[in-house]
Amino acid sequence: MTDVKARRDAVFGAGSTLFYDEPVHIVRGEGVYLYAADGTRYLDMYNNVPSVGHCHPHVVEAVSKQIGTLNVHNRYLHEAILEYGERLLATHHDGLASVVFSCTGTEANEVALMMARAATGGQGIICTDAAYHGNSTEVRRLNHCRSSTGDVRSVPFPDGFRFDLDHPGQDPLTCYLDQVQAVIDGFRNDGVDFAGLLFCPLFANEGLPAIPDGFLPAVAELVRRSGGLFICDEVQAGLGRTGNWWGYEVQGFQPDIVSMGKPLGAGMPLAATAGRRDLVEHFRKTFRYFNTFAATPGQAAAGNAVLDVIEAENVLNQVTTVGQQLRDGLRPFMGRCEPMADVRGEGLFVSIEWVTDRRTRTPDAEGAIQVVEQLKARGFLTSNAGAYRNIIKLRPPLVFSEADAAQFLDAFEDVLDGLD
Amino acid sequence: MTDVKARRDAVFGAGSTLFYDEPVHIVRGEGVYLYAADGTRYLDMYNNVPSVGHCHPHVVEAVSKQIGTLNVHNRYLHEAILEYGERLLATHHDGLASVVFSCTGTEANEVALMMARAATGGQGIICTDAAYHGNSTEVRRLNHCRSSTGDVRSVPFPDGFRFDLDHPGQDPLTCYLDQVQAVIDGFRNDGVDFAGLLFCPLFANEGLPAIPDGFLPAVAELVRRSGGLFICDEVQAGLGRTGNWWGYEVQGFQPDIVSMGKPLGAGMPLAATAGRRDLVEHFRKTFRYFNTFAATPGQAAAGNAVLDVIEAENVLNQVTTVGQQLRDGLRPFMGRCEPMADVRGEGLFVSIEWVTDRRTRTPDAEGAIQVVEQLKARGFLTSNAGAYRNIIKLRPPLVFSEADAAQFLDAFEDVLDGLD
Repeated sequence: MTDVKARRDAVFGAGSTLFYDEPVHIVRGEGVYLYAADGTRYLDMYNNVPSVGHCHPHVVEAVSKQIGTLNVHNRYLHEAILEYGERLLATHHDGLASVVFSCTGTEANEVALMMARAATGGQGIICTDAAYHGNSTEVRRLNHCRSSTGDVRSVPFPDGFRFDLDHPGQDPLTCYLDQVQAVIDGFRNDGVDFAGLLFCPLFANEGLPAIPDGFLPAVAELVRRSGGLFICDEVQAGLGRTGNWWGYEVQGFQPDIVSMGKPLGAGMPLAATAGRRDLVEHFRKTFRYFNTFAATPGQAAAGNAVLDVIEAENVLNQVTTVGQQLRDGLRPFMGRCEPMADVRGEGLFVSIEWVTDRRTRTPDAEGAIQVVEQLKARGFLTSNAGAYRNIIKLRPPLVFSEADAAQFLDAFEDVLDGLD
Repeated sequence: MTDVKARRDAVFGAGSTLFYDEPVHIVRGEGVYLYAADGTRYLDMYNNVPSVGHCHPHVVEAVSKQIGTLNVHNRYLHEAILEYGERLLATHHDGLASVVFSCTGTEANEVALMMARAATGGQGIICTDAAYHGNSTEVRRLNHCRSSTGDVRSVPFPDGFRFDLDHPGQDPLTCYLDQVQAVIDGFRNDGVDFAGLLFCPLFANEGLPAIPDGFLPAVAELVRRSGGLFICDEVQAGLGRTGNWWGYEVQGFQPDIVSMGKPLGAGMPLAATAGRRDLVEHFRKTFRYFNTFAATPGQAAAGNAVLDVIEAENVLNQVTTVGQQLRDGLRPFMGRCEPMADVRGEGLFVSIEWVTDRRTRTPDAEGAIQVVEQLKARGFLTSNAGAYRNIIKLRPPLVFSEADAAQFLDAFEDVLDGLD
């Protein structure tokens, strides 16, 4: 393993991200399991890209067959990608009628920003102060943004867990909405035309916070009243993760534009931006956007096969059931473990908040990392995340079963026993 | 086909790019051939992504096997992607020691720009006035750039075919170098710190112009003398297209950073940015760049299999031989066809310049499109391109044979007969 790490430092340059103190060397995946070179089997509670399970045979067969038949760019006609586009749009609310395919979540967010700016004629974009939306020069401006000037400005993410500490006696919904309105007003006062707002509907990178009821529908109304568009980043939240098709269904509102990525293609780079047909057509006319590797027969085969499995295996219901089982199983541990201060999430996306002190709710990233490492030592792959890196993040493939959840709960209890 | 086009306009929104007056509906590919739904067989003289031929069995088998075994992100260790990185870097000059993988040429150029700007501390980038480097917000600023202010500024691309019209009696090498120096001086005068210059070494989108001998080595020296970095966009020019591994070998110079894309993965989205190890490590430390779908076992399988085929089938030599045959076969037609004013190119990348008048060398885009459509009617897929869209562009899969070239030359003569 040391040799592999040294080779990696030379080929990639030192500093490329690796998980865990001692990185794992994975050689095989099947369903919810990953297997290391030394034979260790891990239960995968982190990966959302292989959403229907690692190396699902239906997906592997469909992609293999297609790349052996044709895989070429989209300036020729091909039916499979149209079928995929139709099926993907059919999972969304009716207002999302057309789609632009790309290869990565970053590209999907690039398209979304260009689409919103072209349609509104504005440049001003609102994001949260602890988001991550991708790795390009423009999209990076929205990551962990603390700006209150220029054309990209942030609002504090809604943090129901800590709200009363800084705002005793206030109403979180009113307070967070006022902050959005203040940025919209700031744009107007500074002569920056408003284009829209880009949020993950679960605020996944922020740490899956408790969001005040009705917050996102109310934000959408504020944004539209000021001529802006609501862009939903569904790269993590979408395609069944919450037990709904899309994260925006949790709070029940209808975004104008959605960007999608990670789970769509089960590892085939496949991303998409859907919008109202007029928005998409205006985007196409303005930019003549073309993406060589996107909207190909290969992408279509992967995307269609993933939808096949989600439908055939009744995955959305399973996500709802097993996600609830996980949270219900975890919550009682809070009674015996002081640092474990909150358990939140939707469907198979769970966050466990780790603190040094429940009264001050001081984030404990070190403690969260320690739990992640202990879980790894027991054969469970998780990670820490969130604005303060103190969230233990559980985001397994969607085909994670009740038995898998039970195994994890036993291991988690064992880790807690070791901490006591 | 009308139905398919109508479905496409609904799903993608009207305005997505399609080739040809009557789009082709392709359903299968094999080697250098594409097959339409109506049974028509086309000789593919356009596609560079399936560089080793459509659906090459070795590539299909390698990718199918890998995606059935493991295809996961790169924060775990995996050897195949390291092997691929080592093999890819071994085809480059020794100065390019480390690599950042991504999914598209756009992303590779995003990384290259970030890398150059981080390393130099500058923002100023030089491109040509008729380039295309990708579709993101930042990279788009370099497309068909006409700016002489701000941090992205252009120089006229070297156009040996038309130089004497505007610059009678002048030396093209001196003239074009002076223009690069003028932009560097302009940055200095305006207080914009210089980061570097991004050129395709063949100026492919500009129209594969005749480049003055020694131009690129001299530009590299100018750029470095002013503290900048030379970035080579090898997305089209690279991986055997010229009969060399890389386009920069044609003029014999060593870029500091190269971006690579289209042909690397035979349709699997796979792109890369290579640089000196210190540049890559500075980039990694500065940006903590992570790309979920990049540097995966699936990308590695595709990339390694493409290199296997290029080596096993002696593709570089074939490219040199057949490319020369194509140009030698085309040039005599200039004697009988007034609009066909020049035949240029390197390896299997050929451009035919179409003009309304040889004296004025006025570009004739309409005429070029007419030839492209006539070739298509005879079963040959080409396109028009270049700064004036008057270039007939031939860029077949690299496994294009002498017999394929002979077939094409017959068809081309037949088209000319029809024009006479």
